[in-house]
Amino acid sequence: MRENKLRTLWIGGKRATNVWLAVPAAYSTEIIAHQGFDSVTIDLQHGQGDYASMCAMLTAVSTTASVPLVRVQWNDPGEVMRALDAGAYGVICPTINSRAECERFVGACRYAPLGYRSVGPNRAVLYAGGDYLAKSNETVLAIAQIETADGLKNVDEIAAVKGLDMLYVGPSDLGLSLGREARMDQTDPIVVAAIDKVLATAKAHGLAAGIYCVSLDYANAMFAKGFDLVTVASDAGLIAAGAANLQRQIKTI
Amino acid sequence: MRENKLRTLWIGGKRATNVWLAVPAAYSTEIIAHQGFDSVTIDLQHGQGDYASMCAMLTAVSTTASVPLVRVQWNDPGEVMRALDAGAYGVICPTINSRAECERFVGACRYAPLGYRSVGPNRAVLYAGGDYLAKSNETVLAIAQIETADGLKNVDEIAAVKGLDMLYVGPSDLGLSLGREARMDQTDPIVVAAIDKVLATAKAHGLAAGIYCVSLDYANAMFAKGFDLVTVASDAGLIAAGAANLQRQIKTI
Amino acid sequence: MRENKLRTLWIGGKRATNVWLAVPAAYSTEIIAHQGFDSVTIDLQHGQGDYASMCAMLTAVSTTASVPLVRVQWNDPGEVMRALDAGAYGVICPTINSRAECERFVGACRYAPLGYRSVGPNRAVLYAGGDYLAKSNETVLAIAQIETADGLKNVDEIAAVKGLDMLYVGPSDLGLSLGREARMDQTDPIVVAAIDKVLATAKAHGLAAGIYCVSLDYANAMFAKGFDLVTVASDAGLIAAGAANLQRQIKTI
Amino acid sequence: MRENKLRTLWIGGKRATNVWLAVPAAYSTEIIAHQGFDSVTIDLQHGQGDYASMCAMLTAVSTTASVPLVRVQWNDPGEVMRALDAGAYGVICPTINSRAECERFVGACRYAPLGYRSVGPNRAVLYAGGDYLAKSNETVLAIAQIETADGLKNVDEIAAVKGLDMLYVGPSDLGLSLGREARMDQTDPIVVAAIDKVLATAKAHGLAAGIYCVSLDYANAMFAKGFDLVTVASDAGLIAAGAANLQRQIKTI
Amino acid sequence: MRENKLRTLWIGGKRATNVWLAVPAAYSTEIIAHQGFDSVTIDLQHGQGDYASMCAMLTAVSTTASVPLVRVQWNDPGEVMRALDAGAYGVICPTINSRAECERFVGACRYAPLGYRSVGPNRAVLYAGGDYLAKSNETVLAIAQIETADGLKNVDEIAAVKGLDMLYVGPSDLGLSLGREARMDQTDPIVVAAIDKVLATAKAHGLAAGIYCVSLDYANAMFAKGFDLVTVASDAGLIAAGAANLQRQIKTI
Amino acid sequence: MRENKLRTLWIGGKRATNVWLAVPAAYSTEIIAHQGFDSVTIDLQHGQGDYASMCAMLTAVSTTASVPLVRVQWNDPGEVMRALDAGAYGVICPTINSRAECERFVGACRYAPLGYRSVGPNRAVLYAGGDYLAKSNETVLAIAQIETADGLKNVDEIAAVKGLDMLYVGPSDLGLSLGREARMDQTDPIVVAAIDKVLATAKAHGLAAGIYCVSLDYANAMFAKGFDLVTVASDAGLIAAGAANLQRQIKTI
Repeated sequence: MRENKLRTLWIGGKRATNVWLAVPAAYSTEIIAHQGFDSVTIDLQHGQGDYASMCAMLTAVSTTASVPLVRVQWNDPGEVMRALDAGAYGVICPTINSRAECERFVGACRYAPLGYRSVGPNRAVLYAGGDYLAKSNETVLAIAQIETADGLKNVDEIAAVKGLDMLYVGPSDLGLSLGREARMDQTDPIVVAAIDKVLATAKAHGLAAGIYCVSLDYANAMFAKGFDLVTVASDAGLIAAGAANLQRQIKTI
Repeated sequence: MRENKLRTLWIGGKRATNVWLAVPAAYSTEIIAHQGFDSVTIDLQHGQGDYASMCAMLTAVSTTASVPLVRVQWNDPGEVMRALDAGAYGVICPTINSRAECERFVGACRYAPLGYRSVGPNRAVLYAGGDYLAKSNETVLAIAQIETADGLKNVDEIAAVKGLDMLYVGPSDLGLSLGREARMDQTDPIVVAAIDKVLATAKAHGLAAGIYCVSLDYANAMFAKGFDLVTVASDAGLIAAGAANLQRQIKTI
Repeated sequence: MRENKLRTLWIGGKRATNVWLAVPAAYSTEIIAHQGFDSVTIDLQHGQGDYASMCAMLTAVSTTASVPLVRVQWNDPGEVMRALDAGAYGVICPTINSRAECERFVGACRYAPLGYRSVGPNRAVLYAGGDYLAKSNETVLAIAQIETADGLKNVDEIAAVKGLDMLYVGPSDLGLSLGREARMDQTDPIVVAAIDKVLATAKAHGLAAGIYCVSLDYANAMFAKGFDLVTVASDAGLIAAGAANLQRQIKTI
Repeated sequence: MRENKLRTLWIGGKRATNVWLAVPAAYSTEIIAHQGFDSVTIDLQHGQGDYASMCAMLTAVSTTASVPLVRVQWNDPGEVMRALDAGAYGVICPTINSRAECERFVGACRYAPLGYRSVGPNRAVLYAGGDYLAKSNETVLAIAQIETADGLKNVDEIAAVKGLDMLYVGPSDLGLSLGREARMDQTDPIVVAAIDKVLATAKAHGLAAGIYCVSLDYANAMFAKGFDLVTVASDAGLIAAGAANLQRQIKTI
Repeated sequence: MRENKLRTLWIGGKRATNVWLAVPAAYSTEIIAHQGFDSVTIDLQHGQGDYASMCAMLTAVSTTASVPLVRVQWNDPGEVMRALDAGAYGVICPTINSRAECERFVGACRYAPLGYRSVGPNRAVLYAGGDYLAKSNETVLAIAQIETADGLKNVDEIAAVKGLDMLYVGPSDLGLSLGREARMDQTDPIVVAAIDKVLATAKAHGLAAGIYCVSLDYANAMFAKGFDLVTVASDAGLIAAGAANLQRQIKTI
Repeated sequence: MRENKLRTLWIGGKRATNVWLAVPAAYSTEIIAHQGFDSVTIDLQHGQGDYASMCAMLTAVSTTASVPLVRVQWNDPGEVMRALDAGAYGVICPTINSRAECERFVGACRYAPLGYRSVGPNRAVLYAGGDYLAKSNETVLAIAQIETADGLKNVDEIAAVKGLDMLYVGPSDLGLSLGREARMDQTDPIVVAAIDKVLATAKAHGLAAGIYCVSLDYANAMFAKGFDLVTVASDAGLIAAGAANLQRQIKTI
């Protein structure tokens, strides 16, 4: 089975970059996947991807060595399994608030006896290889997003769920849920403390830790702080920021 | 009929920005159209748009004040008319090499007696208003791309075609066709001279002049030189450049 | 933030028209949205829209002043949030049978602390404006469909859910659930009494009331009865009725 | 091979109804095809259909007895053949101005030795039957649209092209080309005379005659005048007219 | 209402063939539906179909007499209802583990008072006829997939759910769940015994029984054993097997 | 630049297999591309692919070592260039009847000074590498289809066109054009002689020769006869043949 390069990086003590994909187009996906980022995340929650565009985008990523992750719309077993069957090498599940929710999610990522994932990896065998059934349980990543006060409160028991691989911080929702601002690149002490708690809990349980960032400086700071996977940009953000930057500097006369 | 803001700008002595769209997605289009550029070009030649995505992208642009242009795949009357019927406020036709080719193109943009455009402006009436048939001949732009040695040789008689509104320089093809490099932001004296000739010819015939650029500096220089419409970026370019820039500066450890 | 014209109308003592969209095409949507109806509903339950066509249709509606509503497939938080993120200015949730179901639904429509909607309004910020996060809770509409015997029984406690904006009657399901006929434009006294009860309950709780109609006369009667939003037609119905009418009157010889 | 019901009707001395399809959706197509019209026309010129939606719409029509016609974007052999391969039982070609243009068009509709259509009827054999190659030349319809002053001038030699089956009047373009108004349901004496000439020429050459109408009365008048196929409505027109009619009669209070 | 040919076959003491569809394309669907199989299954769980392609594929199947079934992604009422509204004549629900799960599923397939299916059969009335509401409860098939140790343990009470029509064996998941191999065409005695138990339980409750096979011999053996519906192949399997067979026998020199 | 494996094979004295793709789906394409065939052909003429599905299919092929070819709809420069820009490593042009037609086609495949291909290889640079502009002229294949009496008559001058790489026989059209049967795997002596002439002409001009086959035996015979590329199957054919084979052997009781 094709290795999961993220696992390989982490085993080697390295960190991984990630780019978020909100534009449901194979072409923009393929451009980004060719830039050398360690992984990309096809976002089915707040991005505009759906199942059909996800398949097209996973195919586009498969032309490169970038590891394809999918953030599902919600903690729905059918949707989680579909993402994996289509060749995702990891699933990020939003808004995990409790151990039970995490078990439901992780179970959907694992074949029996570790979970209840149904057998039928249609594109996954093309992408990963013929021994997919035997090795996928130890290859694909199950990633729980911690982004609420409840998730934070229960983060230790969430992290203890067998088969979970990573805690991923959603800073904007986390801020809002804690009664602070809904923004990225948080500097609010209360939210920063919460982020640090998630990071520490992940480490304590031998899990990887990830976080979403929008500025280069903040992303570099998160690497320095110890995060294993840092989302450093999104396709929509690159377009908007690049365009706004031009608008400021163009002198039409 | 909704005004063509490009004409209004030029009449007022102003210049217009333009962004090129190669990603066939309404969402990325809508993001860019909201950044305040005067116009966008949906590229059906070297972009990945086709008729269906063009319609979706034109609809996305219609939520803003940005003027939607379409570059057609080739000088084909059916395709030119289809772009206009769908609501394009201007068509850029690639590789115009002669007066006859230009007449064929411009004729497809104009209703009788000025041309032979067939009547059936399906989306255009929604976008432009109920008086579309009466006013479209004087509103929508016919833009000939000059990008070959032949086009350059015949540029004067091309510019003389009645109903043509703009000459648009394709620097990469023009360079290659002149035996120089196929690149944007040309500084090769031979190609620069050719570009200047196109600009001067446009001005001599009372036409607008446009050009495709990739760097901010070159774009500003082209505005300074007198071009009326300058393509200052593309969606694919913004993504690739932004991503490459990040890659250089990210410090994963 | 762009106002919600439906709220504005109601505050001004006015009523609102609505057209139902079952055909998953941006073009037919744009035609209808240009006819001046106060709102349209993209139907993901019994219409043929899905997430991708919903995005295209929301974009088409955004070219007009018509307010875009979405009826979701089922009371699923992920789907409700996705509709709002894409720019819906209201969500209609089918088959609300109890207070708990209504709370689950309304919570998905509201950011903390009023609900648990996740932050990521991708198209919504383009449509509504940069202050979306601050103002969306008081702008977008949460609409519960009352269409079962259980929903009717519990209508008072459903209407009491904080953050709910409207009760919307589904006459066909309501009739069937009450052991009567599954039809629109109900005249069966038992169903009419149920409809009146929903209307009265909405008014008692300070909510708006809506209902689906198929004939002009019934729609006008519902406005006269006091409904604040009346669905007066559907795209599929307009096509079928218009075509059937023609078939009756065409004389081929 | 499945019969062409239009030919059967005409042989039996009957006339045929037709509905125009501009909305690129299989669902609206299937609704209309179930209303009992003798034929439908998928419009790739002024409608929003393209090759992919045409295939979907042809499939939808194939669930009924309505005969599927396609109007191509332009007189392009590749496009004409593709429509037939996908199962169209007739092709309408816009803007036929001369005998040569008509021969180019009709040749693309016929296999050797009658024409130069390339062999590969992918969906057509599913729709029509295994003997498609043997019988399609005498089954599918080649229909030339007469809608310009040139077409009118040369209508007799156009009608003489072997293998042509019908002359179809495009009233709006014809009016404009003759220096009159670009409108449907023409009553201008000059345009009416032109229409009559096309009809008479068709009859003189043993061809069928068709025309596009928008009002019921005009359509009935055209049947009475002797047209063999009359387009009595379009999907977009049904939607717009039905919606406008409602708008006039709705009393929101 | 159009009969459900599967019911007719079974009433007549006959068995039914089925082909699985994983490729989300109307064209490949239409090819297979024309081969004379009694039924096809559009797979939304492990196939690449989604709602939009399912609609297109159901339309393609509607051009033939083959009965269209849909396997839904998960036991979700909204999704089950959507498949039926679009014209599926039966729904296969994966991973039914208990009576409660089966009731939830079957209830979504039946209108009140037998279930809680919501009224709005958009395409279904086109496919089935105007009396759909009155007759669909006794026409469309509700099929529970038994493919886990829990499902096997509870198979008797699952089979007792009123309104259920068939038990369908998923051999691969069943094997894995029983601690054996995840493979089709099971010969492992433990799994074979489980399959036999499902078959016997179906018969004891007067239900039909179905099973997924990949080889011709195994499929024939399952018919001989008494299964009423046997999936004999999939589109993806036909392509892969045919291609692999060619690869073995081609002699390039 | 990524090598063109077909050229490498031929230089090494080897022959190449090819599979035809008529189903416009990335998934079936990816399945076939993983079977180890040397090349595939995405058919835009008689297959159901269009530009958008071609891009998706090219992306799917790019995950494998199989060489992607595209057969265009017609000899249209814009379409030829678009296929190459999207990453096709060869274009097959149907119905080349004369030297002039061949020059028009080959010119569209080559950058100046060898041809007039316009610069803008959007996906091609992702697939092939950053030196695409410099090396594509010697890498991508220009393939003329000989399939008419005229093409046969002029085959020598067609083969002499500089830059042409292969003559490809379309046996069905060729048979029909010669007054024989329109069928594959021709055994008619007149058509066989024509095929042999095309093969010999290709060899005489140092070009590769290719042919479309449907049976394994015929394909092997064509390899034995000296063809350099043999189309050994199509996706649609594999599905239909596999399904028909099953139908013959299934014993439902």
